[in-house]
Amino acid sequence: MAVIVQKYGGTSVADIEKIRNVAKRVIRAKEGGNDVVVVLSAMAGETNKLVQMADTASGGEPDWREYDVLVSSGEQVSISLFSIVLNKMGYKAISLLGYQVKIVTNKVHGNAKIHRVDTGLISEELKKGKIVVVAGFQGVDEEGNITTLGRGGSDTSAVAIAASLKADFCEIFTDVDGVYTTDPNLYNKARKLKKISYDEMLGLAGAGAKVLHPRSVELAKIYGVPVYVRSSFSEDSGTLVAREDKDMEREVVSGVAYDRDQAKVTVVHVPDKPGIAASLFTPLSDNNINVDMIIQNASSDGYTDLTFTVSKKDIEEARRLLDEIARKIGASRIDYDENISKVSIVGVGMQSNSGVASRMFAALANDRINVLMISTSEIKISCVIEAKYTELAVRVLHDAFGLEQEN
Amino acid sequence: MAVIVQKYGGTSVADIEKIRNVAKRVIRAKEGGNDVVVVLSAMAGETNKLVQMADTASGGEPDWREYDVLVSSGEQVSISLFSIVLNKMGYKAISLLGYQVKIVTNKVHGNAKIHRVDTGLISEELKKGKIVVVAGFQGVDEEGNITTLGRGGSDTSAVAIAASLKADFCEIFTDVDGVYTTDPNLYNKARKLKKISYDEMLGLAGAGAKVLHPRSVELAKIYGVPVYVRSSFSEDSGTLVAREDKDMEREVVSGVAYDRDQAKVTVVHVPDKPGIAASLFTPLSDNNINVDMIIQNASSDGYTDLTFTVSKKDIEEARRLLDEIARKIGASRIDYDENISKVSIVGVGMQSNSGVASRMFAALANDRINVLMISTSEIKISCVIEAKYTELAVRVLHDAFGLEQEN
Repeated sequence: MAVIVQKYGGTSVADIEKIRNVAKRVIRAKEGGNDVVVVLSAMAGETNKLVQMADTASGGEPDWREYDVLVSSGEQVSISLFSIVLNKMGYKAISLLGYQVKIVTNKVHGNAKIHRVDTGLISEELKKGKIVVVAGFQGVDEEGNITTLGRGGSDTSAVAIAASLKADFCEIFTDVDGVYTTDPNLYNKARKLKKISYDEMLGLAGAGAKVLHPRSVELAKIYGVPVYVRSSFSEDSGTLVAREDKDMEREVVSGVAYDRDQAKVTVVHVPDKPGIAASLFTPLSDNNINVDMIIQNASSDGYTDLTFTVSKKDIEEARRLLDEIARKIGASRIDYDENISKVSIVGVGMQSNSGVASRMFAALANDRINVLMISTSEIKISCVIEAKYTELAVRVLHDAFGLEQEN
Repeated sequence: MAVIVQKYGGTSVADIEKIRNVAKRVIRAKEGGNDVVVVLSAMAGETNKLVQMADTASGGEPDWREYDVLVSSGEQVSISLFSIVLNKMGYKAISLLGYQVKIVTNKVHGNAKIHRVDTGLISEELKKGKIVVVAGFQGVDEEGNITTLGRGGSDTSAVAIAASLKADFCEIFTDVDGVYTTDPNLYNKARKLKKISYDEMLGLAGAGAKVLHPRSVELAKIYGVPVYVRSSFSEDSGTLVAREDKDMEREVVSGVAYDRDQAKVTVVHVPDKPGIAASLFTPLSDNNINVDMIIQNASSDGYTDLTFTVSKKDIEEARRLLDEIARKIGASRIDYDENISKVSIVGVGMQSNSGVASRMFAALANDRINVLMISTSEIKISCVIEAKYTELAVRVLHDAFGLEQEN
């Protein structure tokens, strides 16, 4: 008998009819002789509606403790409705909220991190033969205040619960049926992967792939939780995200990802002194602005150019902070470019295969796509290009690395 | 400095604009130097919507534990939104759910009774200068399961919190501006009462007046909590529900109430033996059917007729139970009459004034309104009449006891 955690997103529980379909799937897992824990998001659209209410009530600056009380009510509705449906179908089910489980987090309202998940109550209810239905996205701090985990939080809830329960695996049901070599909406030759390693999944998610939230993958990696990404609407077995198979030949490149949400900032002609980078990036970090790629040009005359990317949504705030800093550190000016995107190739095999980067650049150059910035890690190479070439670049790279066929 | 508990119903917090208006009223109380606890219902229509969802999901028979998780989410939304608005207006506010307070109840889901209210956290937050916004209608059992108090539960929450906090008074804000001598929608000569005793209020509520839920009045009486019934939409001081003034002349009759929700059941020609009443009423009570008036005709030939009233909504269920019992106890038949209503006069003064009943009967007879059943208590006389005479009977009795003028 296995212990399984199944997570269903908002579109899977959007109405009673869909809830009934999901319930049937849960029951099949239960009837298969397994202990089943279900983690749910709010019904589709509900969280946005609640966020909108908070915005209207506060002009966009709600008290964040109260914001969490408000938005967490969405999952309270979905888990109780789901449990009502399961009970009606003749299967004993019990809903548990974050504070009941308890899913203990830090105190960062709206974007809390999970510290621990108590499994006592869940295990007790599973032992009674019940299906346990847990609210995703929410937790509780040490003082009993409700917290929420931020976008993608329900995936993280599911993996954290699976890790704490030492579940056999965690299934993330979503509206796509797995992880693809690239976005199938963008390139019809995209191929669904049977398996991908945690690191590659993290690489793809960090590069803009939207399937799983990176936090949930990090957690799965740390605790070694096998995660299946599957569709709620099909029987396809989906993609397994797991530890790398050591005995297998590694794929050189597993996928191509893109991210249109980036903007490029260049601090021009700044005196090349120690501490310059810190004086630029500390204020950004203090204001919760994540900097992605950073490139510092080699200095020759005692001056340097610093280029980096931030999320488009942060660009106004970054501008406000940087204009003042630029004067202080003696930069001649700052250039902003929102008309860019980032394309990346990801694969664990590139560590032991030379020439991957040059194949990437050659493929892009062949179609006259100019590369504005480059950054590399052990398993990923990212290029910033002009936004209008995004689709073309993805297709070119997918072909260049032969991703259409399984190797 | 006083401690005040203010309760606002769903129509008072139906949208952000109304919430802002209520918030201003709360702030005035706070600015007056008081500690203020606000108890809220769900936004108008929300509880019904959630109940409807539970019905759709379950065909009308939800798992009641899960039902409570579902419907209690309505108050979670209203208290957090309200706190967001107060904070935005520059007043520190904190929302507290039933389990956070804790409002500890028994385990009767959907209709729980409050055992105790811990005041530690509320007092602590008041001491910090905060306005404390508590979810009405909900509590938590000893094991941490969410419970709800049934219809009218938020009034009960407010009074229970006021009692536990030893608040100076409790204000129940509603869509009427006080307690009237009778329903002003039915008779335009109805007069608003400045004050009414707990017992009279209970009498009126039990007789069909909809202003306050009887449970909240019972609780107020036990703990001596002064309750003001006021309108959220006016500055009128409303009606004070409090202990009887011992030094004042008592009103003979304070109000006339009516109840159209009754149905009459007559068990005809049943052998007059000990235990007959029990064998009839125990199954009803076991099925949560409340019996209101009961009349047993004097027996002469060893047989008797038993007549009683039940709520119209329970009549089908009662019929199902009684048809079988009638056969067992040898009754010749059972008559059902849904075409009735109950009119009542209530007043603490009738205990020391003779002739009140005969004045009532005379007034009704004068307009040829036939009385089908009569029941009396220390402070109330109720008559069952044909439903079509309801409005006429109310006006006739209001005039007969001179309720238009203050005595």
